[in-house]
Amino acid sequence: MGEWVTVCEVGPRDGLQVAHGIMPTAAKTRWIAAMAAAGVREIEVGSFVPPKLIPQMADTAAVVQAARAIPGLLVAALAPNLKGAQNAYAAGAARITVPVSVSEGHSRANTNRSPGEQVAEVGRIAAWLAEQPRKVVLEAGCATAFGCSIDGDVPTKAVVAVAEGLVRAGVDSIGLADTVGWGNPAMVHERVRAVRAAVGEKLQKLHLHDTLGLGLANVLAGLEEGIRAFDGALAGLGGCPFAPGAAGNIVTEDLVYLLESMGFRTGIALEALLACRELLAAGLPDEPLRGALGRAGLPKTFRPAR
Amino acid sequence: MGEWVTVCEVGPRDGLQVAHGIMPTAAKTRWIAAMAAAGVREIEVGSFVPPKLIPQMADTAAVVQAARAIPGLLVAALAPNLKGAQNAYAAGAARITVPVSVSEGHSRANTNRSPGEQVAEVGRIAAWLAEQPRKVVLEAGCATAFGCSIDGDVPTKAVVAVAEGLVRAGVDSIGLADTVGWGNPAMVHERVRAVRAAVGEKLQKLHLHDTLGLGLANVLAGLEEGIRAFDGALAGLGGCPFAPGAAGNIVTEDLVYLLESMGFRTGIALEALLACRELLAAGLPDEPLRGALGRAGLPKTFRPAR
Repeated sequence: MGEWVTVCEVGPRDGLQVAHGIMPTAAKTRWIAAMAAAGVREIEVGSFVPPKLIPQMADTAAVVQAARAIPGLLVAALAPNLKGAQNAYAAGAARITVPVSVSEGHSRANTNRSPGEQVAEVGRIAAWLAEQPRKVVLEAGCATAFGCSIDGDVPTKAVVAVAEGLVRAGVDSIGLADTVGWGNPAMVHERVRAVRAAVGEKLQKLHLHDTLGLGLANVLAGLEEGIRAFDGALAGLGGCPFAPGAAGNIVTEDLVYLLESMGFRTGIALEALLACRELLAAGLPDEPLRGALGRAGLPKTFRPAR
Repeated sequence: MGEWVTVCEVGPRDGLQVAHGIMPTAAKTRWIAAMAAAGVREIEVGSFVPPKLIPQMADTAAVVQAARAIPGLLVAALAPNLKGAQNAYAAGAARITVPVSVSEGHSRANTNRSPGEQVAEVGRIAAWLAEQPRKVVLEAGCATAFGCSIDGDVPTKAVVAVAEGLVRAGVDSIGLADTVGWGNPAMVHERVRAVRAAVGEKLQKLHLHDTLGLGLANVLAGLEEGIRAFDGALAGLGGCPFAPGAAGNIVTEDLVYLLESMGFRTGIALEALLACRELLAAGLPDEPLRGALGRAGLPKTFRPAR
């Protein structure tokens, strides 16, 4: 039987937050429910940030509450600080992801804190969550782990230092994020190895953007290093406000095709997932849909992994 | 110093033959000269096929003759049969590539011969070339080596059998072509290993299409197997007449970016190569230009391999 790889859909958060226009709450929940019905087990449904900063995320509490009713779905949400994490907890999120930029410039632009200050904030979130009656998974996303459009090169030792700080701060798991999409397979090998050497299995996930077309090659390098969890966004929704011309996240359906065609099981039915593109288009008519599978369709020889 | 990887540009052949419209001869030669000036050492400039079948290739002899004047450029051309190879030789091509489909259906559609009959034709070409005063490299491209939109799955043992036949027929080198773009990294590993086990270093190149977005991930798998030569087409020009919705070849500039960013030297200056997209657009205004690098531009941290 093929090995399991977890695919987490982040389009409702990472995609919608930079989209042209605001998807109505009902459209979000229909879209999320359809992806869950296609077999997606984890969805990051929104972000607990001030609505005046990111109006697309103003209804995140309502979306979390609606998504909790979907059987078998892990409902994840992003929170940049303790207040956001408290709101995510109150709404009922099962996993809270806190972004921690490795580079100083992106960290200040994104959270108005230095990386060290943001690691300390994660510590406060971990301490607060530990006192709550309901167990919530605390994940940290190491942003700009493969380069930064503000600061340029990001050294591997800085990524390792942030990851080590996050483990000391009490996170359950860590993802490395190629926020601007400048990573390449050689970097993925080198950084995953270095972080794994420092924090072991706490490093669980890669969050990759497809700015330069290397997204799926980077996934392959991650698979070869033993990574078994990846974020993706349906139709490659999204981008990065600090990287002009950047494409969005890797395309979930293309990611699933890569994995299933290589024999990795994802639990996701590709035909059903592809049909979810229509719900995305209906909820956000002005957003371009990317992705090779959406254009070419499934090859007639495709068989899901067993 | 970084290892060398050969990038062969096939856009003037594989791209233009399925393009909307016909690029004028002068525009072709300007475009080819600019790519050579950017550092591309091998260009497949056209195909010696009957003009009534592929009118875009009617001027191939003139294009070969013009390209021969470019210093340091290996001028390659495609020829599907002995007559085409004789014309390619007469025009002065330095390398002649003969397509040999592994699958029966594609072979008959493409050359009106079975795979075995086409291998025999390659033998006649090798014998004729051996009698000529000028040495020309004879390459065979094993089409549909990763699947066929007509016949479906193509077994590895069929690929190996065709490759063995081609070596017996006297070719200098072999490329495996993912004509319809259904290959995945696991298949690349398995098939390259199997063919290398049978014919050794005669297997030199991969020719990949990006139909399902796995093109560069497949390159990575090829690199890991020791392949050091890849075809690409500027702006991902092309497609496959037998695979509706199929994208074209892998995008040369994205391929070069993948290689150089990983430390492999290609000899190609990316800024200059990107500028060649404008010549392509000028010569073929109705053709869409694809590619991540063309959209996003080079990251400011990019440094060529040394």
